[in-house]
Amino acid sequence: MYSFLNDYSEGAHPKILEALAKTNLEQTAGYGVDPHCDRARTLIRQAIGRENVDVHFLVGGTQTNLIAIAAFLRPHQAAISAVSGHINVHETGAVEATGHKVVTLPSKDGKLTAAQIERCVVDHHNDPIAEHLVQPKLVYISDSTEIGTLYTKAELAAISEVCRRLNLILFVDGARLGSALTSDQNDLTLGDLADLCDAFYIGGTKNGALFGEALVIANDQLKPDFRYLMKQRGAMLAKGRLLGIQFESLFEDSTYFDIARHANQMARRLDEGLAALGVPFLSDSHTNQIFPIFADAVVERLERDYAFEPWQKMDEEHLAIRLVTSWATDEVQVEAFLEDVKKVL
Amino acid sequence: MYSFLNDYSEGAHPKILEALAKTNLEQTAGYGVDPHCDRARTLIRQAIGRENVDVHFLVGGTQTNLIAIAAFLRPHQAAISAVSGHINVHETGAVEATGHKVVTLPSKDGKLTAAQIERCVVDHHNDPIAEHLVQPKLVYISDSTEIGTLYTKAELAAISEVCRRLNLILFVDGARLGSALTSDQNDLTLGDLADLCDAFYIGGTKNGALFGEALVIANDQLKPDFRYLMKQRGAMLAKGRLLGIQFESLFEDSTYFDIARHANQMARRLDEGLAALGVPFLSDSHTNQIFPIFADAVVERLERDYAFEPWQKMDEEHLAIRLVTSWATDEVQVEAFLEDVKKVL
Amino acid sequence: MYSFLNDYSEGAHPKILEALAKTNLEQTAGYGVDPHCDRARTLIRQAIGRENVDVHFLVGGTQTNLIAIAAFLRPHQAAISAVSGHINVHETGAVEATGHKVVTLPSKDGKLTAAQIERCVVDHHNDPIAEHLVQPKLVYISDSTEIGTLYTKAELAAISEVCRRLNLILFVDGARLGSALTSDQNDLTLGDLADLCDAFYIGGTKNGALFGEALVIANDQLKPDFRYLMKQRGAMLAKGRLLGIQFESLFEDSTYFDIARHANQMARRLDEGLAALGVPFLSDSHTNQIFPIFADAVVERLERDYAFEPWQKMDEEHLAIRLVTSWATDEVQVEAFLEDVKKVL
Amino acid sequence: MYSFLNDYSEGAHPKILEALAKTNLEQTAGYGVDPHCDRARTLIRQAIGRENVDVHFLVGGTQTNLIAIAAFLRPHQAAISAVSGHINVHETGAVEATGHKVVTLPSKDGKLTAAQIERCVVDHHNDPIAEHLVQPKLVYISDSTEIGTLYTKAELAAISEVCRRLNLILFVDGARLGSALTSDQNDLTLGDLADLCDAFYIGGTKNGALFGEALVIANDQLKPDFRYLMKQRGAMLAKGRLLGIQFESLFEDSTYFDIARHANQMARRLDEGLAALGVPFLSDSHTNQIFPIFADAVVERLERDYAFEPWQKMDEEHLAIRLVTSWATDEVQVEAFLEDVKKVL
Repeated sequence: MYSFLNDYSEGAHPKILEALAKTNLEQTAGYGVDPHCDRARTLIRQAIGRENVDVHFLVGGTQTNLIAIAAFLRPHQAAISAVSGHINVHETGAVEATGHKVVTLPSKDGKLTAAQIERCVVDHHNDPIAEHLVQPKLVYISDSTEIGTLYTKAELAAISEVCRRLNLILFVDGARLGSALTSDQNDLTLGDLADLCDAFYIGGTKNGALFGEALVIANDQLKPDFRYLMKQRGAMLAKGRLLGIQFESLFEDSTYFDIARHANQMARRLDEGLAALGVPFLSDSHTNQIFPIFADAVVERLERDYAFEPWQKMDEEHLAIRLVTSWATDEVQVEAFLEDVKKVL
Repeated sequence: MYSFLNDYSEGAHPKILEALAKTNLEQTAGYGVDPHCDRARTLIRQAIGRENVDVHFLVGGTQTNLIAIAAFLRPHQAAISAVSGHINVHETGAVEATGHKVVTLPSKDGKLTAAQIERCVVDHHNDPIAEHLVQPKLVYISDSTEIGTLYTKAELAAISEVCRRLNLILFVDGARLGSALTSDQNDLTLGDLADLCDAFYIGGTKNGALFGEALVIANDQLKPDFRYLMKQRGAMLAKGRLLGIQFESLFEDSTYFDIARHANQMARRLDEGLAALGVPFLSDSHTNQIFPIFADAVVERLERDYAFEPWQKMDEEHLAIRLVTSWATDEVQVEAFLEDVKKVL
Repeated sequence: MYSFLNDYSEGAHPKILEALAKTNLEQTAGYGVDPHCDRARTLIRQAIGRENVDVHFLVGGTQTNLIAIAAFLRPHQAAISAVSGHINVHETGAVEATGHKVVTLPSKDGKLTAAQIERCVVDHHNDPIAEHLVQPKLVYISDSTEIGTLYTKAELAAISEVCRRLNLILFVDGARLGSALTSDQNDLTLGDLADLCDAFYIGGTKNGALFGEALVIANDQLKPDFRYLMKQRGAMLAKGRLLGIQFESLFEDSTYFDIARHANQMARRLDEGLAALGVPFLSDSHTNQIFPIFADAVVERLERDYAFEPWQKMDEEHLAIRLVTSWATDEVQVEAFLEDVKKVL
Repeated sequence: MYSFLNDYSEGAHPKILEALAKTNLEQTAGYGVDPHCDRARTLIRQAIGRENVDVHFLVGGTQTNLIAIAAFLRPHQAAISAVSGHINVHETGAVEATGHKVVTLPSKDGKLTAAQIERCVVDHHNDPIAEHLVQPKLVYISDSTEIGTLYTKAELAAISEVCRRLNLILFVDGARLGSALTSDQNDLTLGDLADLCDAFYIGGTKNGALFGEALVIANDQLKPDFRYLMKQRGAMLAKGRLLGIQFESLFEDSTYFDIARHANQMARRLDEGLAALGVPFLSDSHTNQIFPIFADAVVERLERDYAFEPWQKMDEEHLAIRLVTSWATDEVQVEAFLEDVKKVL
């Protein structure tokens, strides 16, 4: 049984385990103010190409989303998200639990457009009883998205322009940012993200770390007291250095990008192999998640040897499934899967 | 420079790092439903001697406290805590951020008594406008406490009796439970805790794990849907197995207790050594935190070679400091510290 | 200028002002435990035909919705509402501010069906990672709805059956319950509501009171400690008797229903008059809110002499407006309006 | 039976009822943007002597406290209050329910001093792990206090100076501000409050209104979007004019102060009468709440004919009770009470 269930099925990239072992008996301060965290922050600032960003290390994506949104908004303000956005569907109402509504916009490809954001916000502002509506204030987007799609630089710049004009906060969920930035369709850099967004995070959990997300706050107004919020929500890791050590390992050389590229390559191989067999797809993904559509009977057969998530019922007899690749995906298993699909079809 | 700052200055017990390395390429399900978590739950149930408890693995103490309290209480209900309780002073209002007041009771030794809990609750119930007051519903205590003291079995049984009679929830913060249970003054077992409390946790972060607390819910009424709350507060680790593997390592043999005992022994050696030099103490600790009182000038000299936390100003010229030992505390350094104190005095 | 803007444009029914004046110098206990509140509760229980319901008096609708939902749900649980539900669109995220998500279902007529509720809940339960989703637990419906439509007894019974089978709480927003129950299309009674729902409220603000909603809790499990929640959210009126006196006035005879019936009759007259002129409508309303569709130019002309709310743009040249009648609506003005429409058309 | 239980035992000052009756059939906009609210805001600004303050009308004190504090603070910030502060003891944790801790300071006379506020804030700032503590940001004081005492202009100016120096928000609960400002010991004006505080409110409920508090926001930074918060917490009265009409009645002439002065005079008469009989007092009150101490047997006898609140057990045989006077207190009853005490003693 081989698993394409997700990109966090294994432990961590070996480099990380080695670094943890090597530093194990060092005595350091707790809570993220140790030398490893400091160095990791420096490395990330270098990768971004800007000094004036705050970098905080958190344990997971839901935690990062909920704390950032709670820190950035006043009580009556809401986050705008695609209906398919992770904060809207897969975080057990974490944002609402901090008191904020998630205002949803429809999206076929998992992305928001500048135009729909503008319309939503203007409609709220212009409502004759605007005070009876929440005030949309933060735009939440994911890159890559929950269905594997990507923002182009032009798209992100257009969203950024609307946000600045309408005084909105632009926040990018980068749980799979590694896969996005190394996609063959990508034209964005970490520097672009820091320039165009108010805050974003660089996902570690889904790209080779045991756990960890590096939140980058570029907007000065959002920086004060963020660490208080982390502590208040139970997100300030006592042995904070564990996060520092992991991001040092990923950013002291090109590891972060190299292993994300491997995940993408494995997904492309699956893509091409399945397409060659005539398999259709739910979305046009160029990242590490792909969504092929199979007849139910085929799915049933594949489930005997492979683990994956059923994603969306297409009709009475067809199902889109999700295949996820990662830094750890074995090329041999990818080829075996394609062979097996061929046989089953 | 040697640090007695806390019990989370180093990484993890080597056994844990080995287990992480050994299991690194296993593919497992996420979110704590993998075989390692299952086995760790089984081992903990065996250590407790009861099958019918739920065991959840969380990342840290503040996180565990806030989620348990939010899960167990209705909105108008409050937690009772000693003024010195961790939830009252050192969690940035985490409990209040979930909507609940912390009702504080005075305490000299960091402990609550059954009598003061009863008086507090009865006073609230009997108030002619009780509905204008919060309803004290959960009793929060720590064992060992924030100043190193311990509950005896008789004390805990008395508190438990009051709680059951008055329909209160008894919750024990066990961030330093290992040190408590292996103290030379302790007469409690894990089984006693499960019998006397509604929920408690077994701290890993401060006893040799990279991170992790094992929350034990003994009261059936508090069990439903706890995992939803974990996810909602950003506490469901994607690679949940990391917690399972660590608690397996600690509980598959006597490691958890052995390393806690080492910490206590190091603290006793410091205790005895300092007492022999005539140093007074803030509290009568038999665990891994001790609070010697020194003249300010002495503290200043010791700070050149040792890290520790200033704890409480005693008078214009004296300070109680906190020395914390751990699984990793080096006996050589302990002796060196005692030598240095002797010289300075 | 005559206003059809809403049903709370005037003060209170004269009977209420008289009762307030008559009782003004009585000394009573505060917070809703005075003889007037007691009598009002008794009168409401008689009108319902059941003794075993709790009745609480609150000041307004948003307040009642948010407190009931906060009181009834655990943190991870959500309310299901039509997209057009008042809690979803016109309460500034009040429910989310108490920590709960509003899960929305599409609806053309402002109503939910038993089938769509069941599908929504079953889909959530069956999700392989259900714990990553909120748990839909409470069904929020309005009678009459936000666009003037009504639930039949059969429809409400079907929803009630699903709720009981799936262990959901059924909560009815009755801000305009008077208009609903006196509609010519209605076949529900207060007794039916108490039997079929877990809680509902009888709106006063929009039916002749200065302010006030009478919340009826029929489900025993939802009764404990509700008054604590009222106080905590700032909803326990110091001079609680003001609410008691108003509901006494409305329920000591048939006033509550008589004045609601007047509002409906005025709306029917508008309905019929406009229909006779060939005006189409957005919804098929038999209550005190109607939604005629006019050309923009017509709306502009009518706005000179009448106040009303623009409701929904139908196309580039047409707008649905909302006309609301009340206990105070003047028949002369209704006829004048119809005359004026005739002239303008 | 005559009641000295509180200052909200009766309805409203007759002038208010008349104004409500007179305006009853006017049609006005809802939610506090009608001509009566506008005029009341103008009158209050004139009474203050400043144009640049925002004035909002809310229904009650707990509601005003919780909304103001929720609107003014970020999630990790806390309110400082005397232990005896209304938000700390008698609002069912309303502030905590919005997510904020109430940091309490001891006080014998119900007041805070500039020095203790400064010490508290500086201690929090200087803590080596300040981020693990809440951040005290808002100072909550009541004038008159919960035990009838008053702030002098010098005391308030000193607190204001500390707040501005340390960047704190000064918020005054004025539920009994009328009584404070008309006390024979008072040297503060409404203008002083607007100059020295960031926000305060002028209590109506306890000074002759049916209900209502006028919140004055003087600090520009606290003004934006306050009405959103009101709506979100269920505090935007549909028939908002009811609040406008009441404050118009109280402030279009000297009524607000005249009736508060009457309450104070009745309390002084009780004061002097009891003092003449040798009765001791719990606090030195010059407002409309006094706290005489009687033997338990005396209290028992008085309870047959008078209602009042038992306040504080002084020793095994003595009790301090609270007597409250109001705009409606009858001088004949005051004299009768004094006579009866004389007889009983």
